[in-house]
Amino acid sequence: MRKLKNEELGRLTIEEYKQSNKTPIAIILDNIRSLNNIGSVFRTGDGLCIEQIYLCGITATPPNKDIHKTALGATESVTWKYKKDTLDAIKQLKSEGYTIVSVEQAEGSIMLQNFKVKVEEKYALVFGHEVKGVAQNVVDASDYCLEIPQFGTKHSFNISVSAGMVMWELFRQMRY
Amino acid sequence: MRKLKNEELGRLTIEEYKQSNKTPIAIILDNIRSLNNIGSVFRTGDGLCIEQIYLCGITATPPNKDIHKTALGATESVTWKYKKDTLDAIKQLKSEGYTIVSVEQAEGSIMLQNFKVKVEEKYALVFGHEVKGVAQNVVDASDYCLEIPQFGTKHSFNISVSAGMVMWELFRQMRY
Repeated sequence: MRKLKNEELGRLTIEEYKQSNKTPIAIILDNIRSLNNIGSVFRTGDGLCIEQIYLCGITATPPNKDIHKTALGATESVTWKYKKDTLDAIKQLKSEGYTIVSVEQAEGSIMLQNFKVKVEEKYALVFGHEVKGVAQNVVDASDYCLEIPQFGTKHSFNISVSAGMVMWELFRQMRY
Repeated sequence: MRKLKNEELGRLTIEEYKQSNKTPIAIILDNIRSLNNIGSVFRTGDGLCIEQIYLCGITATPPNKDIHKTALGATESVTWKYKKDTLDAIKQLKSEGYTIVSVEQAEGSIMLQNFKVKVEEKYALVFGHEVKGVAQNVVDASDYCLEIPQFGTKHSFNISVSAGMVMWELFRQMRY
């Protein structure tokens, strides 16, 4: 099984990316502290070709060399916006027809393996602060909570990893 | 949707974790450079209750304060071993009955959405160096290559994110 060379991967230019069909997913980062996490979410968003990312509250914005270290250029391809108040991002995305889904351990949350994407629906996934999680008022403004089942000693995933798992699950259902 | 408190999450003690039923997944880290990535794989492994992690080659081992920063204690719960040569880890895990799956963009790779877990089968997932990927001789010693489809400008995910996506997909099929 010969490893593919970079030139065999069919990578898009930024121009081609901007024109390409997007996966109907937006991401809302609610007060994310780590520049590493922010950059990593951009990189995953680029790979799965999502629509847009909202950076909210204390979440830092590009250009930033520490975001760049993990985004590796994906801040140029993926559309992003900044909102000081996460609730304003939710309001905006609701007005664009998105279903708002907070990824959080909460009463009445839907477990990720039970989440069934609806055809023609667009989803905005909210990920919260590394320690505090998604703020309660943001959870309250969401249509659903989605929870990744956990069986270990910690019951908390790194946010860029959670974002990867949840984005993959929705992407898989949407594209295949 | 009230957020759950830590004491409502049903977190296992390390002792309970050691006794619990494991998800039949092992991870092989083939020359991983970033301490952040190593710790993050431990944390995800804890949450999904995998069997073991092999740290190989230049991959650093616990105790290490930078691994701890992202593992947050998961190096205590998840069983790990070190092998200088990744091929020795593969040999060991093959002798324990694992199917070896390198996560790599290669000729004849199976796309993640098409990968069907077999009942009663145990899988060892190999993740490679941040820039060079899984070494060709390690790919050659594997039973399959597994590839995450990508539609962006980069065609490379952060390794802790890839590990999260692939572990989630196998975990979902194994547990639900």
